[in-house]
Amino acid sequence: MRIARMEFPTPDGPEARIVVAARHEPGRWVDVRAALRLALERRGATPAAARRLAQTIVPGSLSAALENGEAFMEALAQAAEDTQEEALAPEGGRLVAPIDPSLYRDFLSFEVHFTNAARLHHHGVAPVLYEMPVGYMGHHLAFIGPEETVPWPFYAKERMDFELELGIVVGRGGRDLHPEQATGHILGLTILNDFSARDIQLREMQGRLGPAKGKHFCNAVGPVIVTLDELPSRDLRMTARVNGEVWSSGQSGTMLWSLEELLAWASAGEPLPAGALLGSGTVGFGCGMELQRYLNPGDLVELEVEGIGVLRNRLGQPPAEGWWPSPRTPSIQV
Amino acid sequence: MRIARMEFPTPDGPEARIVVAARHEPGRWVDVRAALRLALERRGATPAAARRLAQTIVPGSLSAALENGEAFMEALAQAAEDTQEEALAPEGGRLVAPIDPSLYRDFLSFEVHFTNAARLHHHGVAPVLYEMPVGYMGHHLAFIGPEETVPWPFYAKERMDFELELGIVVGRGGRDLHPEQATGHILGLTILNDFSARDIQLREMQGRLGPAKGKHFCNAVGPVIVTLDELPSRDLRMTARVNGEVWSSGQSGTMLWSLEELLAWASAGEPLPAGALLGSGTVGFGCGMELQRYLNPGDLVELEVEGIGVLRNRLGQPPAEGWWPSPRTPSIQV
Repeated sequence: MRIARMEFPTPDGPEARIVVAARHEPGRWVDVRAALRLALERRGATPAAARRLAQTIVPGSLSAALENGEAFMEALAQAAEDTQEEALAPEGGRLVAPIDPSLYRDFLSFEVHFTNAARLHHHGVAPVLYEMPVGYMGHHLAFIGPEETVPWPFYAKERMDFELELGIVVGRGGRDLHPEQATGHILGLTILNDFSARDIQLREMQGRLGPAKGKHFCNAVGPVIVTLDELPSRDLRMTARVNGEVWSSGQSGTMLWSLEELLAWASAGEPLPAGALLGSGTVGFGCGMELQRYLNPGDLVELEVEGIGVLRNRLGQPPAEGWWPSPRTPSIQV
Repeated sequence: MRIARMEFPTPDGPEARIVVAARHEPGRWVDVRAALRLALERRGATPAAARRLAQTIVPGSLSAALENGEAFMEALAQAAEDTQEEALAPEGGRLVAPIDPSLYRDFLSFEVHFTNAARLHHHGVAPVLYEMPVGYMGHHLAFIGPEETVPWPFYAKERMDFELELGIVVGRGGRDLHPEQATGHILGLTILNDFSARDIQLREMQGRLGPAKGKHFCNAVGPVIVTLDELPSRDLRMTARVNGEVWSSGQSGTMLWSLEELLAWASAGEPLPAGALLGSGTVGFGCGMELQRYLNPGDLVELEVEGIGVLRNRLGQPPAEGWWPSPRTPSIQV
């Protein structure tokens, strides 16, 4: 399946709806809630009750929908088969971020990327990067979707960057999962742009935590989520273009860890919720830092992953200067 | 106000309810939803509509309630004045985590703690720790409340630890806030125990990201949230006891940054949602690592903060071994 979310105008402002590509007419989007509402009516629900039930099982939030488990997954699968006119998404919808993640965690799993970073910053490569998928928690509420503008944070100055990644959408939560169980927990893959403000990222990470401010201002995700069975392979071509020029290209198959191993490790000893998004980490040479080229306000970044599509975002303009803390004077000598 | 959540049995399993200490009888807890329901009925709502409305304005999740803005804050303030019998929380409730955070971020803001850590691990103190509040995003869905057992993750071996921290509960969200605006965005303070599995924390952080697995298995929070106007001062006594023995004591006033500065920085260039929880970082000598003493299964950890109360949690038993990734062989030499 190809799963997305579309925004439509309503008297209360734009509303996101979950849509799925019709299996036999992949150019058409089926509105999953409408398809379920109609199916419930056919099974004897009153129109008002069908509407209420369909809204609860298929909310506008994909992460909330995934929390409904098979009740939602069945509605999704049935909608993909349903091309009656009334179930189709109306014209004029705009694709938004397909997932509004319940949690977002990013891994370092491409050896070329982390060895490039070590070389550039003159530090060694820690053996732990070959022992387990190392990662950090990101800001799950700072996501934008396709064609949306990246808000430029006031604290980013010269080295604004993108990162070309795969996003793994967790369909079913769990804890202490084994990789063999993990395939059934993956809803599908999407494209992830982990925008990075390198000036502040490198500065704050000298404090041995994070990254934080270097990443939290924005991530982009989309345009769609593709289930594993509809992807051409496990080794997908990944390409980044800036203002139309190819900056990066790589293969997803060069990850050190499988998708299932990343998901299993994300669930080890901690709750991994349905609707979580796991970033693969940046593919080798998949960011400006590795090329020593950076982004400017107004630049257009396009990330393409074979079988998924193109995620296109333009950088916004820097805002007025914001509040900075005033430095403190150390009172303890180490 | 003193705000908490209590769990009560229902035919559908335990349900959390938001409660507030009665202003004139601080030993009594008022059920905020019940108080609002009764008030709505007095203002002409039918019982069924009052129930529906009260449930929407005062859900069981405090972070969801805070998203309702003043509609919820007014209900909370009115409940604190309302000691009619029908609005009181029934007997038999159990205090649970007062906040189920929408986002959790922890800062390093106690100089004694980070200089102790630098000395112990033989690294320098980065100047950035005096230039801005450095922090990282934690796992907002791995919280337990007072008296709950800490799940011991299979990957934690010898150095299980606690961290004695203040928790700042964000009452109202925002972006790019100035510290002068921030007071109005703080709901109140609570006690935070940032449990830490030091073996894996130190190992994974050699990868220059995180912490992640070292922290994500559990945080404890509670027992109540106290609004700033009801705290005795801004310099609160903080104490940690393990199995009844005092291990740590410190003062919250030794933070490098004010509560308002932490909140403002958390919102700089990124969305800070209502219901977020910000950790102050560990007070000086407020963890076992600084004392070179660690926790064992079954240990009882009590964190006390003046004016808030005691947060008490027992460590669980280690489970069976879980899945570990198998190490990879480097194919690139740096």
